Amino acid sequence: MKYIESKKNDEIKQLKKLSATKNIRKTGTYMIEGFHLVREADQFEQEIVKLFVTEKYQDDRLAKKYYDIATVVSEDVANELSETKTPQGIFAVLKVQESDNLENITGKWVMLDDVQDPGNVGTIIRTADAAGYDGVITSLDSADFYQPKVQRSMQGSQFHLPIYRMDINKAINMAKESGLRVYGSEVNSNVKPYNELTKNDNFALVMGNEAHGITKEVLNETDENIYIPILGKAESLNVAVAAGVLMYGLQSL
Amino acid sequence: MKYIESKKNDEIKQLKKLSATKNIRKTGTYMIEGFHLVREADQFEQEIVKLFVTEKYQDDRLAKKYYDIATVVSEDVANELSETKTPQGIFAVLKVQESDNLENITGKWVMLDDVQDPGNVGTIIRTADAAGYDGVITSLDSADFYQPKVQRSMQGSQFHLPIYRMDINKAINMAKESGLRVYGSEVNSNVKPYNELTKNDNFALVMGNEAHGITKEVLNETDENIYIPILGKAESLNVAVAAGVLMYGLQSL
Repeated sequence: MKYIESKKNDEIKQLKKLSATKNIRKTGTYMIEGFHLVREADQFEQEIVKLFVTEKYQDDRLAKKYYDIATVVSEDVANELSETKTPQGIFAVLKVQESDNLENITGKWVMLDDVQDPGNVGTIIRTADAAGYDGVITSLDSADFYQPKVQRSMQGSQFHLPIYRMDINKAINMAKESGLRVYGSEVNSNVKPYNELTKNDNFALVMGNEAHGITKEVLNETDENIYIPILGKAESLNVAVAAGVLMYGLQSL
Repeated sequence: MKYIESKKNDEIKQLKKLSATKNIRKTGTYMIEGFHLVREADQFEQEIVKLFVTEKYQDDRLAKKYYDIATVVSEDVANELSETKTPQGIFAVLKVQESDNLENITGKWVMLDDVQDPGNVGTIIRTADAAGYDGVITSLDSADFYQPKVQRSMQGSQFHLPIYRMDINKAINMAKESGLRVYGSEVNSNVKPYNELTKNDNFALVMGNEAHGITKEVLNETDENIYIPILGKAESLNVAVAAGVLMYGLQSL
């Protein structure tokens, strides 16, 4: 196996740049780290392009399986590549797997209209996975789900359910044409409380920006807008919590 | 009004230390920042000990109301005190308001057993406020809710509902003696799904640590343990999302 000692190595410098969205899009690849994620990527048949392990893991099952594309790196390099303080010492570069020519969807979907915080985007995708939803679509101005911070909060859910990034208006039209009912989530007590909706197994739930909610343009396109009743004195809920309450709430109508 | 120009001023140095839990406990005071929070602290009659504003806000209503305890600070000092990149220029020091001799509680409570992440603790308190719960008790080893990061995610909910920090076993016994039913939240499909509980208006919902869940000792003390069904392939939910799903779920049984 190849060995890289120095964090100044050109390949390492290029890898380091993969935390920036523009480089993820340019190369069509992104990096994940840690045993749990790399194991899941392998198990769920993601296309692994490169594998990096520290010396102590060069005899690991994954290092053997991916021998031809594996590189051993020093602890110094692992620290350079890692987003955490104590890296586990295993990293993989994966092919971005998405298509923007999604033409038909069925079941229960979540759509994000300009959700900015990477932790929120990742947590919502993880919750959609847990709640048995069929997929997630994020708008082009939401936090990119291949960013390391989003990866960390998704905890591997990107391998369990389809996630797409596309123009939100196109996504809503496509959902409607697929026969899904589109619900917009608002902080507005004049719309319908979510628990008064009629049960339905084909819908898209749209969540909006942390500060401004769903854009007006999008709210006009939805079939019905819903809200979570605020029973105390808080002004609103965190968007990832609200998405969780709605995803489980709409499941158990 | 007094004016402080330099961030090396002794009072500013002391204030800066208030972000550490031990100093919050030692002085019995903590700092909040931003108009929204300071306005809420005033509105909900918190004991404001000191107020700091930048020059452009020295004629603000709050600066006038708290004239005797207000100080004008330079932009430089505001940047030093702030947890954000673009500070609004208003800070208040408040008295810690809590008691550990809580003897009787009624209604719906949330208890946190070693929830470590400040964002999770703050978000859960904000959600408890939104969902109309009566109060929150955190264990002594949970993230301290007077930390700046917790403050930020609570968004003022600390002024809307009582929050206490006490020994979790004591808290559970006190809840039971007060006639509340105590539910422990587990990631364990052998316990009861939350939506099969019998409706009840007096209970305490216990949430556990991000990685390890509720401690065994505490699980043995609860009246009933519940879980959120995982319908997809995710292993678990983020604890703040799980708390939100349960808080609203138990409200609408």
